[in-house]
Amino acid sequence: MQFSPNRRGFISLSLGAISALVGQGVGADAQSNADPLPSWNDGPAKRRILELVGEVTNLSGSGYVPPARRLATFDQDGTLWVEHPVYTQVVFALDRVVALAPQHPQWKTTEPFSAVLAGDKAAIAKFTTKDLEAIVLATHTGMDVESFAATVRAWIAKAKHPRWNRPYTDLVYQPMLEVMRLLKANGFDLYIVTGGGQDFVRTYAESTYGLGPEKVIGSALETQYSYNARGEGVLMRQPRLLLNNNMSGKPEDIYLFTGRRPLAAFGNSTGDRQMLEWTTAGGGPRLRMLVLHDDARREYAYGPALGLPNTKVGTFTQALYEEATANGWIVASMKTDWRTIFSFG
Amino acid sequence: MQFSPNRRGFISLSLGAISALVGQGVGADAQSNADPLPSWNDGPAKRRILELVGEVTNLSGSGYVPPARRLATFDQDGTLWVEHPVYTQVVFALDRVVALAPQHPQWKTTEPFSAVLAGDKAAIAKFTTKDLEAIVLATHTGMDVESFAATVRAWIAKAKHPRWNRPYTDLVYQPMLEVMRLLKANGFDLYIVTGGGQDFVRTYAESTYGLGPEKVIGSALETQYSYNARGEGVLMRQPRLLLNNNMSGKPEDIYLFTGRRPLAAFGNSTGDRQMLEWTTAGGGPRLRMLVLHDDARREYAYGPALGLPNTKVGTFTQALYEEATANGWIVASMKTDWRTIFSFG
Repeated sequence: MQFSPNRRGFISLSLGAISALVGQGVGADAQSNADPLPSWNDGPAKRRILELVGEVTNLSGSGYVPPARRLATFDQDGTLWVEHPVYTQVVFALDRVVALAPQHPQWKTTEPFSAVLAGDKAAIAKFTTKDLEAIVLATHTGMDVESFAATVRAWIAKAKHPRWNRPYTDLVYQPMLEVMRLLKANGFDLYIVTGGGQDFVRTYAESTYGLGPEKVIGSALETQYSYNARGEGVLMRQPRLLLNNNMSGKPEDIYLFTGRRPLAAFGNSTGDRQMLEWTTAGGGPRLRMLVLHDDARREYAYGPALGLPNTKVGTFTQALYEEATANGWIVASMKTDWRTIFSFG
Repeated sequence: MQFSPNRRGFISLSLGAISALVGQGVGADAQSNADPLPSWNDGPAKRRILELVGEVTNLSGSGYVPPARRLATFDQDGTLWVEHPVYTQVVFALDRVVALAPQHPQWKTTEPFSAVLAGDKAAIAKFTTKDLEAIVLATHTGMDVESFAATVRAWIAKAKHPRWNRPYTDLVYQPMLEVMRLLKANGFDLYIVTGGGQDFVRTYAESTYGLGPEKVIGSALETQYSYNARGEGVLMRQPRLLLNNNMSGKPEDIYLFTGRRPLAAFGNSTGDRQMLEWTTAGGGPRLRMLVLHDDARREYAYGPALGLPNTKVGTFTQALYEEATANGWIVASMKTDWRTIFSFG
């Protein structure tokens, strides 16, 4: 969300009346007293979110931040939507191996492809990062950017999560959508900053999160400008990693894309640590939050912080937990802080 | 400029009444009949710009494009501001060699630095791309991103162009500022897409063009996340090129940053060719414009298209001119299409 430089007048918001700002075309409920975070239980996490919004929008307060600098960044997998039992994009990549197998007869006898084609779940569960990289490179490259996006769109419209039997895009966290809406209404510029593939997430970011493709920063493969048979310029996807948007890559790429430092950052794993640290170092009011998956009944429970199970997907270590508590980062417990998890209840 | 998905109603604009749209906080002159391009003489270039805006905003026309897809990209050097006799960033880099020389005693006897320190203009004029790269890497890296930005800001506030004895930021083209304002007022999302350094241009883009740092796509060096003496996260500038935002790099990086294809693209040299081609290939109403520097009296004259002098900075070849005319790209002549060139007249 951009602002004309002449329109920086904002309503000073009391904690009880955080709501949409005027001048944005966002809505007319600026004076509403409705709870902007109804899916959150009362607690330190919810209070700190509301407090930060109050601080940075209070024109007469010491924590006031002009809208142009209200940048908020969100990890995706495990922060905005479900990442278990495997990352959605990995499911997509495995499905693509099956779909593309007829064009690659050698895959039947070549690991890691052969395990996928044989449906060998035990072998797939043991795939190394290198195995997954080989599968991603083989299935995500060689076509132009529009063709790839169309393939993802077709897949995501049909694929379903095995546990809920619903589209993956239904499995976004309602409490986080409320935070995004609240921040957007208060002049924040929101970016998804995902370790996943930028072009994968961009295909559904607008309909799922209300964020256009330019608001998605993610891991990215190189593209190469070339000409199709009609002599038209096309961008072909190349099997070379340009941006690895994990760990240190997150602050590096946030700066590359926005030239700014976030005021608020949300994550859930060690892959988000540097993003939250870098947000901290900016000084002034800051919000850093980690989502803790401690609700096996309603979603999943994994850590290994606080003795939660150590799974391969989305690692929240004890060291990360200690860094968070030592530095005033919010650890939002899905079990106690979130009244509801999904919009479908 | 972003739009809330619920606010896509736009005024249908007649050619005589192109003006700011409502719902943006852009202005109150939506019904004004004032010429939005007063620095342009009447002619095919001006008419095509107004025509495109009319086409894409006309809700009942076949050329209507939703605001979210109204992307316009602008080369900077030679398109938005003066690039002669040398690129401004090169002047900055040479000045930095002098400023940093005391910390690098070996530069006195090492080319290309020694030529700069000796003020040997003949040798400097013969610098190869490799020489300039060595100077840029030596002067633009090794510090954190904030320190570099502060150095650029201090320099650009004081440096003056030798011909006009004015700050470089005064030497922006008034006709292009009017085009930017017109497109912005009509829902376009504007990006500067420069072969120059992204972090250099970002320091003055907001005050000069009204575009925040996230609207500047440029050549970029890698940064590396690390920790300063106080244990705070910082991004250190590295001597490795991450993005070469020239030629094919322009469409590749526009897609990397925005996930979209431009609807309008503006350039002035062979470095912009692929950006304009890629814009063309999108189908539907399109605007592609090249600025031709054919006015030695008011600015500079260089080509070598149409027999204009062949200079080292900003090459507009005869082949580019022929590609432009064959494909309906506008070639805007500074001499005949621009009534005024600078705001200071």
